[in-house]
Amino acid sequence: METKEVVREIPSKATNFSEWYTAVVLKAELADYAPMRGMTVFRPYGYAIWELMQSALDRRFKATGHANAYFPLFIPRSFLEREAEHVEGFAPEVAWVTHGGKEELSEWLAVRPTSEAIIGHMYAKWIQSYRDLPILINQWNSVVRWEKSTRFFLRTMEFLWQEGHTAHRTAEEAEEETWRMLGVYEDFVTKELAVPVLAGRKPDSEKFAGAVYSLTIEAMMPDGQALQSGTSHFFGTNFARAFDIQFLDADNTRKYASTTSWGLSWRALGATIMTHGDDRGLFLPPRIAPIQVVIVPIRSEQEPLVREAARSLAASLGERVRVRVDEREEYTPGWKFSEWEMRGVPLRIELGPKDLRQNQVVLVARDGEAGKRPVSLDGVSEAVASELDAIQERMYRRAKVALESHTLRAGVFDEAVELIGQRRGFVRVLWCRDQACEDRLREATGGSPRVITDEQVDGGCVVCGRPAVCAAYFARAY
Amino acid sequence: METKEVVREIPSKATNFSEWYTAVVLKAELADYAPMRGMTVFRPYGYAIWELMQSALDRRFKATGHANAYFPLFIPRSFLEREAEHVEGFAPEVAWVTHGGKEELSEWLAVRPTSEAIIGHMYAKWIQSYRDLPILINQWNSVVRWEKSTRFFLRTMEFLWQEGHTAHRTAEEAEEETWRMLGVYEDFVTKELAVPVLAGRKPDSEKFAGAVYSLTIEAMMPDGQALQSGTSHFFGTNFARAFDIQFLDADNTRKYASTTSWGLSWRALGATIMTHGDDRGLFLPPRIAPIQVVIVPIRSEQEPLVREAARSLAASLGERVRVRVDEREEYTPGWKFSEWEMRGVPLRIELGPKDLRQNQVVLVARDGEAGKRPVSLDGVSEAVASELDAIQERMYRRAKVALESHTLRAGVFDEAVELIGQRRGFVRVLWCRDQACEDRLREATGGSPRVITDEQVDGGCVVCGRPAVCAAYFARAY
Repeated sequence: METKEVVREIPSKATNFSEWYTAVVLKAELADYAPMRGMTVFRPYGYAIWELMQSALDRRFKATGHANAYFPLFIPRSFLEREAEHVEGFAPEVAWVTHGGKEELSEWLAVRPTSEAIIGHMYAKWIQSYRDLPILINQWNSVVRWEKSTRFFLRTMEFLWQEGHTAHRTAEEAEEETWRMLGVYEDFVTKELAVPVLAGRKPDSEKFAGAVYSLTIEAMMPDGQALQSGTSHFFGTNFARAFDIQFLDADNTRKYASTTSWGLSWRALGATIMTHGDDRGLFLPPRIAPIQVVIVPIRSEQEPLVREAARSLAASLGERVRVRVDEREEYTPGWKFSEWEMRGVPLRIELGPKDLRQNQVVLVARDGEAGKRPVSLDGVSEAVASELDAIQERMYRRAKVALESHTLRAGVFDEAVELIGQRRGFVRVLWCRDQACEDRLREATGGSPRVITDEQVDGGCVVCGRPAVCAAYFARAY
Repeated sequence: METKEVVREIPSKATNFSEWYTAVVLKAELADYAPMRGMTVFRPYGYAIWELMQSALDRRFKATGHANAYFPLFIPRSFLEREAEHVEGFAPEVAWVTHGGKEELSEWLAVRPTSEAIIGHMYAKWIQSYRDLPILINQWNSVVRWEKSTRFFLRTMEFLWQEGHTAHRTAEEAEEETWRMLGVYEDFVTKELAVPVLAGRKPDSEKFAGAVYSLTIEAMMPDGQALQSGTSHFFGTNFARAFDIQFLDADNTRKYASTTSWGLSWRALGATIMTHGDDRGLFLPPRIAPIQVVIVPIRSEQEPLVREAARSLAASLGERVRVRVDEREEYTPGWKFSEWEMRGVPLRIELGPKDLRQNQVVLVARDGEAGKRPVSLDGVSEAVASELDAIQERMYRRAKVALESHTLRAGVFDEAVELIGQRRGFVRVLWCRDQACEDRLREATGGSPRVITDEQVDGGCVVCGRPAVCAAYFARAY
């Protein structure tokens, strides 16, 4: 059976989640393994999704006053070492360039694991006066962190991301920026990727190396594990002191700038795939689907007429949506239905001679909720656009229900251990923020505090019983 | 004088070309030196130009059926070595990763100097049947070639570019692609960058390492030196054999695919800066200017009124063009005029209380050709759009005249030596294509054959006098 062929290599999402994920990425041709450990290739269909993600996020960056730039791939070892926590955090996972051409380098160069060190140096050069502030720069690039395992989009040696780096006159302004960009990430991930998240602070044990504090958005995957999907860091003057980023303020005194950085990587695509896919394969939210609508002409003796109608429909829809006509002759319509479902296209239009006679087409949403819905050719453009919006909304709503069903509360230690370790998902507990208590819960569950909320709490720490200072969501995590 | 301050650090373009170029790049904040030899930083204003270039070129790639993807940054040494000429050409300039984390690598990894080797391997994996062909992929990325000198956009250790890689069923189809992409480059460079070029074949001595032949577009800089601005390579089955890219053809026999690659880098931006700039600084073609129009309100007691008018003008122009209002209070209008001219903004709008009373604004083109031109506020949007088009055209026309004045012919050896070596520019000669003759002319002039035309020729080689087989444009080159 041709239909089965399309999905036969996709294991069950419910019972075989990890294999399901890898199979979907490979079969939908989002990515492939490179011949080097830890390295992957982002194939055209996957990269087209990334381009749409970039465009949606970049628009938000520009709307909040940021500009793009590009900083060097290599960072001299001595630069990485300027900020003590930073080098301690990153040195163990750096790829080192030691030879150039036939020359052995006197100073090793790090292939950037992140760019604070080189950007900090440049900011020190560019910033003289308070009039030069703020500096609001982002870059789209790849970074390398030495890594032996390979898990598409989640764990690879090289990954694509953006890293924003800003410098401000005051700590308050920098903190505002740190939270603003967390908000941008949350807005992007929920509206474009239809992935709901918890947003808030990270515990000290999980903060970025060199930060005063880090913020995060965390999504919940169907297997009950959290997936960090974007982070924003407040550095205070840590990096400004390390790289001597000083400015002359209006009061004629020299001050250190306050800086931030924030990043979102192709992990967010991994979260999207895991959240929405099913046993038929990928399911892409319309807003980031390279093909939002596929038109499948139904074969018949009137084929040329049907094909002509399909092409003209595509031309008119093409002004509003990303559409493709599948005219391949070597496959049956049924095979094509399955293939485009597997590749995650959110909406299919079937068009046969009978439909033509009735001046209609048939819409079939990837999630099947609306069934096969005939719509008149006259209002088809409107119907398609609103169906795509409806699909996007349904995807978010379903994911939100799943997140809620994976969010539990635990009042006492044993319950927390049971829920985090066995039931999985986010488990809300009260916590004194003592590292020893965190460690005890980590050891007992394999989970960690993913997000700390800013709410006022009243009660005892779930571990030690002393007064709690925060509520935290613990979970096992990718 | 404030006005002088803006340009005081820019040397004369005519007498001090090289220093002029560096000063313009730095003063206009297009780029800056990084603290490592050979490395530069692409600052936001420069990068914004690059984004517009990318968008204009990417549109052309997609219109010709190409899709973007992303391949790994690292290439194992053994992969580079598969194609003999390729490794010979690139190995001397590779940056090598030898350590990852605390581990010393058993096989060194090249930081990609170009990606044929890794892409060839992946294509071999993806291509089984003639139905999988052609594969038409591009990637936007950076590459590294070990380089000790630093010359912004022209000679740097790391540079930004795009590299297209395609695989085809037949050599004919691959050759067509090679020429098609040369045409895309020529169209892009002339229409978007307003830089005229000579397009054609490279001599064997200058072809890409591993290619059957290479094509190039060559621009002519004001100092009489040629600047290669884009190249397209036909590989025949060289890389297919090295990486085993085979497919089962319709006739049921296994065949090697024919492949191509083509690249254009930020060198094209260097060519644009050199071609159009003047002693007042940068001059950007409107199509790639991040700010196409700057509105400078003229101060007066009616300032709030003028400012209001400037903002509302910007809002209405903003729908068609990229516009900025310069409301800074710490600078005079005259200072602002000079600064935006230095930064290359092609069109300025002056707007004062007198203009407002007359319901007009004053347009001033960066090239001064139209003088100060008052236009009615009613038709200003149309006037601005058509003035931008006119500026773009004038820029191209002037550059074309300059190219022609730098294109000479030499009939005999001594004349060729005199013209290539002393007068500079492109010098057209007839040539037998013998390497010995090329070498003799190179040694005598410091020039090289930049472009070989396909025209039929009748005459003797300018060096040896034997029958010529082609006409070639010799020049000294960047």
